[in-house]
Amino acid sequence: MPNLFANLPRSLPAEQFDVLVAAGRLRLERIVSTAHATPCGRWDDQDTDEWVVVLRGSAGLRFADTADVMVLREGDHVVIRAHRRHRVEWTDPTQPTVWLALHYEGAGPSPTS
Amino acid sequence: MPNLFANLPRSLPAEQFDVLVAAGRLRLERIVSTAHATPCGRWDDQDTDEWVVVLRGSAGLRFADTADVMVLREGDHVVIRAHRRHRVEWTDPTQPTVWLALHYEGAGPSPTS
Repeated sequence: MPNLFANLPRSLPAEQFDVLVAAGRLRLERIVSTAHATPCGRWDDQDTDEWVVVLRGSAGLRFADTADVMVLREGDHVVIRAHRRHRVEWTDPTQPTVWLALHYEGAGPSPTS
Repeated sequence: MPNLFANLPRSLPAEQFDVLVAAGRLRLERIVSTAHATPCGRWDDQDTDEWVVVLRGSAGLRFADTADVMVLREGDHVVIRAHRRHRVEWTDPTQPTVWLALHYEGAGPSPTS
């Protein structure tokens, strides 16, 4: 049986993304970060809403529209709305950080049907 | 910030369901079980696919089409296809069991796991 925490790499050249569920516009993925951060000066801007949780380790999440860095520890979860610009400032330098990210079509500001 | 593991009840009269994300046919929920099981003789038969993971505690999952009970421990995850009849035989008697369950519209008939 697959396990979210099995065989975690100690160090990775880049973040590791494993798709767990993909159906239509829905995508659930496990992300493993080993001290990775979003490259300096880059903001992520996504077309879909994203629910994200940290299950192991920790991370600092910054939004372009607020000053503070949001610190996520084990179990903390947050919804990042489509097109809300954000970046990962840091992830845990002492252990792998395991995330679940659910990308989905949210309600949106202007439904068309 | 909401946390999956904050303020876990030690004992519940019934399983607790908290919807984290709902959008169209998609529903992500946290389930907390305190030694609960599916009532004797009942099978669950769902219209949508379900991805489920145990994050704390443990559980025994039985499918109507197989003899063995599948034991889920922390991090174990499985997809339960729509209309695959199943039941929870037991959940951890010593601590709360925390699940995430993602209900979604799958691709349709698919291989048994």
